[in-house]
Amino acid sequence: MKAAIAGASGYAGGELLRLLLSHPGIEIGALTAGSNAGSVLGAHQPHLAPLADRPLLATTPDNLRGHDLVFLALPHGQSAAVAEELGDDTLVVDCGADFRLADPAAWEHFYGGAHAGTWPYGLPELPGQRERLRAARRIAVPGCYPTSVTLAMFPAFAAGLVEPDVVVVAASGTSGAGRAPKPNLLGSEVMGSVSAYGVGGVHRHTPEMEQNLSPLAGEPVTVSFTPVLAPMSRGILATCTAPAKPGVTSGALREAYELATKDEPFLRLLPEGHWPATSMTLGANTAALQITLDERAGRVVAVIAIDNLTKGTAGGAIQSANLALGLPEELGLPLNGVAP
Amino acid sequence: MKAAIAGASGYAGGELLRLLLSHPGIEIGALTAGSNAGSVLGAHQPHLAPLADRPLLATTPDNLRGHDLVFLALPHGQSAAVAEELGDDTLVVDCGADFRLADPAAWEHFYGGAHAGTWPYGLPELPGQRERLRAARRIAVPGCYPTSVTLAMFPAFAAGLVEPDVVVVAASGTSGAGRAPKPNLLGSEVMGSVSAYGVGGVHRHTPEMEQNLSPLAGEPVTVSFTPVLAPMSRGILATCTAPAKPGVTSGALREAYELATKDEPFLRLLPEGHWPATSMTLGANTAALQITLDERAGRVVAVIAIDNLTKGTAGGAIQSANLALGLPEELGLPLNGVAP
Amino acid sequence: MKAAIAGASGYAGGELLRLLLSHPGIEIGALTAGSNAGSVLGAHQPHLAPLADRPLLATTPDNLRGHDLVFLALPHGQSAAVAEELGDDTLVVDCGADFRLADPAAWEHFYGGAHAGTWPYGLPELPGQRERLRAARRIAVPGCYPTSVTLAMFPAFAAGLVEPDVVVVAASGTSGAGRAPKPNLLGSEVMGSVSAYGVGGVHRHTPEMEQNLSPLAGEPVTVSFTPVLAPMSRGILATCTAPAKPGVTSGALREAYELATKDEPFLRLLPEGHWPATSMTLGANTAALQITLDERAGRVVAVIAIDNLTKGTAGGAIQSANLALGLPEELGLPLNGVAP
Amino acid sequence: MKAAIAGASGYAGGELLRLLLSHPGIEIGALTAGSNAGSVLGAHQPHLAPLADRPLLATTPDNLRGHDLVFLALPHGQSAAVAEELGDDTLVVDCGADFRLADPAAWEHFYGGAHAGTWPYGLPELPGQRERLRAARRIAVPGCYPTSVTLAMFPAFAAGLVEPDVVVVAASGTSGAGRAPKPNLLGSEVMGSVSAYGVGGVHRHTPEMEQNLSPLAGEPVTVSFTPVLAPMSRGILATCTAPAKPGVTSGALREAYELATKDEPFLRLLPEGHWPATSMTLGANTAALQITLDERAGRVVAVIAIDNLTKGTAGGAIQSANLALGLPEELGLPLNGVAP
Repeated sequence: MKAAIAGASGYAGGELLRLLLSHPGIEIGALTAGSNAGSVLGAHQPHLAPLADRPLLATTPDNLRGHDLVFLALPHGQSAAVAEELGDDTLVVDCGADFRLADPAAWEHFYGGAHAGTWPYGLPELPGQRERLRAARRIAVPGCYPTSVTLAMFPAFAAGLVEPDVVVVAASGTSGAGRAPKPNLLGSEVMGSVSAYGVGGVHRHTPEMEQNLSPLAGEPVTVSFTPVLAPMSRGILATCTAPAKPGVTSGALREAYELATKDEPFLRLLPEGHWPATSMTLGANTAALQITLDERAGRVVAVIAIDNLTKGTAGGAIQSANLALGLPEELGLPLNGVAP
Repeated sequence: MKAAIAGASGYAGGELLRLLLSHPGIEIGALTAGSNAGSVLGAHQPHLAPLADRPLLATTPDNLRGHDLVFLALPHGQSAAVAEELGDDTLVVDCGADFRLADPAAWEHFYGGAHAGTWPYGLPELPGQRERLRAARRIAVPGCYPTSVTLAMFPAFAAGLVEPDVVVVAASGTSGAGRAPKPNLLGSEVMGSVSAYGVGGVHRHTPEMEQNLSPLAGEPVTVSFTPVLAPMSRGILATCTAPAKPGVTSGALREAYELATKDEPFLRLLPEGHWPATSMTLGANTAALQITLDERAGRVVAVIAIDNLTKGTAGGAIQSANLALGLPEELGLPLNGVAP
Repeated sequence: MKAAIAGASGYAGGELLRLLLSHPGIEIGALTAGSNAGSVLGAHQPHLAPLADRPLLATTPDNLRGHDLVFLALPHGQSAAVAEELGDDTLVVDCGADFRLADPAAWEHFYGGAHAGTWPYGLPELPGQRERLRAARRIAVPGCYPTSVTLAMFPAFAAGLVEPDVVVVAASGTSGAGRAPKPNLLGSEVMGSVSAYGVGGVHRHTPEMEQNLSPLAGEPVTVSFTPVLAPMSRGILATCTAPAKPGVTSGALREAYELATKDEPFLRLLPEGHWPATSMTLGANTAALQITLDERAGRVVAVIAIDNLTKGTAGGAIQSANLALGLPEELGLPLNGVAP
Repeated sequence: MKAAIAGASGYAGGELLRLLLSHPGIEIGALTAGSNAGSVLGAHQPHLAPLADRPLLATTPDNLRGHDLVFLALPHGQSAAVAEELGDDTLVVDCGADFRLADPAAWEHFYGGAHAGTWPYGLPELPGQRERLRAARRIAVPGCYPTSVTLAMFPAFAAGLVEPDVVVVAASGTSGAGRAPKPNLLGSEVMGSVSAYGVGGVHRHTPEMEQNLSPLAGEPVTVSFTPVLAPMSRGILATCTAPAKPGVTSGALREAYELATKDEPFLRLLPEGHWPATSMTLGANTAALQITLDERAGRVVAVIAIDNLTKGTAGGAIQSANLALGLPEELGLPLNGVAP
């Protein structure tokens, strides 16, 4: 199998390439870029030594054709035009937001402009979703925050343990904001400082979380979501809490999470008393998860750590692509992090 | 006025000294320490150049007597014995937890052992508290997390805008965990990583938050509190959310916070659209605050940044001491942070 | 005395303002900016709470006139045009490079373009320089790296202890690279990484170091200078080494440094066995210094820590301005750092 | 092939295990520890999800016997006793210092106590060394700093381009100092700060650098070495400079380095104009290298980046073990880093 990567000079593109370099079933084909086209990959991804001399082509359908699969890591709004030109014999995996939301109204409210459509959602752990992905030729990779929050809360909703009123505060490393230089993302600004942004229901990942959890709840789930920028390059730590339904016990909670995670290769429910740190999952496709019942406050609290670029983007994309290509789901995806 | 500092070799002690070095109304007297007694301050606080040669005495009542005020920055459980030996003509300001909680049952549940008592609570911004502090000879400095959460939420409760069911996720720098070396606080472990700890209603600062907010709410307030360790030395960013009461509007919310903060020298409600970062308050006694109404989720969200060592400990201690000593409340306390 | 600050929205400008806010002899006047003119200071320096609403004017001579002193914190090449329009009754302190070098050939080689001229060099600790600054109406503030290297090595050269062949490797925080957003300065790039740049005698601060040290050596001093970018916002740690002259002893070395630093308010020779860390000087106008004689290698090694924005730029600027204004040299300048 | 790891709960042990998890030719056998024996690996290395439940045995010869190879990652001084009990049919690879130095006098001067002996030195890139390692049953893994400095300078000495008077300043991440909790290694102390230590010819890695370079120079090489602690968990950036011999040109220098590196799988001479950053090599067994001739100062400057735990310890250990086991040298060793 041969894969092209559109957007190879950005952070998502770089992580796709890092993972594909040790993927035994996928060969790296054409690399394309926007304004960086014409240079070599080594100028932008100097950590990818084996690919340093690879040229960056322009992101055009012609340059992407002739591959078994194409990963799109493009700015929002650019995927549809490229994907249209690629036939159904090509698996197209979009790391952008364009095809994530099913509800055109939510799209228009949060992103603006016309809704491009909806592709199968690349989160194999969602109940029922793995089968859909096996048959997919188009895949919408989830957002990094929705990946973390959905993985943290789906067992509670699937087991009917919590009310549909979720509060999430999630700290993210700066790579989630991408590689375009902005003053507030300078090292001088972010080192030694934690800051909030997109507060009060305005972050674009909010409707995606609700879309994932509502079907499991059997009723509309509302998420109050606050993203926080933390002084690290990678990682998301999401704290997710919802009121426990009457009569829910610690034992029932743990049982539900054990059941939901025991056959999932990338979900790791930590031993009781251990809480997630993003360093546990740095560079890994694993999510580290822990839950507790706060009896005083009557709430279930789930904390999850992922690497926003791996499980949250590129690793998740490859995991879904493996399924769609008929490969073992775990192929080429690291289970262990890089620490300390 | 002359102040002794007990626990001068720790982080709270060091911050007290840093602030007192530029306080025009308080002179630095005896410095004491536990196991570091016998060495000079410069061996532990090399940033405090002007005090480098000051000797560290043992923490005994004899060494602390003869000062107008004594700051205690001791491990929990050691303050009562020292304070008893200091007469009422000495102002004693305790940066530890021993005298913060009014409810002996809460003390026993969260700290264990016998409750030492309750001293006037050193948070001048709490309605009615400033007057109490003016007459105090003993002051219990609030915990760093409770300082942040109380300052973020008291205006909403005082104005009757939110339900008494608060969810807090607060990211803290590592200095909040103190200076005793533990494996999980090594730089190698904390750099590049965010982690959760004390999740599910077990953190000792939880009852203190509830104690502060319940009287304003006129009913028991429950706080679901999750502390998070962030890769920075200083700072707390607390995200606090509670359901909005029916009919609450954005305008009413902003008005309540403007009213509550406009005469407070250290509370800074940011202009609309700007959100707090801990770097805004590094080394300052200021709290930077912003609020919004999430109409989709029906919740008020308040985000606050403080420096855990300044406004959250040593600066707050001096602010209350200023009041008790009849000095201007703002004397010697920096309003601006050190950035970038 | 009233000071205008040109370039108030950058890092040097912000640090000047932070220091001037607690300077008892200088009042803050007009603030100007380039592309940020028209906005308020709070949009760019949110840590400077007391100045949040101050408007940023355009950087024109008209807006800067009518002040006792003007600090210029402008991109290289812009200072001369502004300074020409300000009369000699105004003290002009230039934090840029334009007037630092005496040798037009060195200027042309390292900066290119025409040499603007030479102003009195704002490093009071250089032997003889303090008197020159007392009479100055124009001051060229040294570069941050030359400040560190000159302060580390001048005692050795003044005492004739080393050969004129210096090797310097200096690690700097990212604020030294300024606030203009560049991809390589993004937090995602700099966190968790140390990198070299400007290697091999090409960094513009190299001739300035040689200009400072050569007169003390009585012969041309050559500096091999390698700057290194470290994952922190502030601080320079410079390791400076030169061959010891024959017969030099540890004792003679220490004596020379004690003599050179004992009356200097901002030079702090650490006790033997203690080595500098940049955290000792964060936000302070102090330089922390230590030296040793490596007898195996026959070299003197001097290590110095400064805050690049304080002693390395804004604090050094104010120190020299104090002298030129007839104020006490130390007025308004912090001796202690902010740590941890 | 089956490998035991002694010292599995430390940083070197953890990195050995991370790499062995994806090594196709070596299976992970017994894990042993000192004071952590009796617990499971997951309590100490939570990032190594697949090994979380593995028990930690006591570090005894009995527990290490019966493996094809044994990696020792023990505190200095403990390797000899263990190795003696393992027969010559077992390959023993010591990540500690005990068997690195050939000169007993150097050992006694820098480490104290009796010299344990000398084992084949595990740096395959040293001219002639690869063949020696193919026949070795005992291997002394180089120190992390000597690995970086030797790789940076051996081509210059081998080609006779520099004088034997080297100055090195190397910044290291904190993991190089190990996992034992010490106050100066706390996150609060190291974040936001660069500091020097072991200055003036006293660092234990100094004689090892000289031992490696002197034979290539054909005369005794002296190294002035200053280690610097940087605020990051991993990585070494070493700046190495020596006087150029008369007549050396830029072209000759580059040619020598191209020749010395072109067949080395893990040495990567960067394209001209690009300088190393430690992030290029994070988690990789690669060294990123660049050189220049500073004609003004008459010096060759070489800058190198490695990951101290990978190429600097565990990766280097596995590379040498591969050779001794008759496996391909590069087997199981990542060529690309994890970035950003």
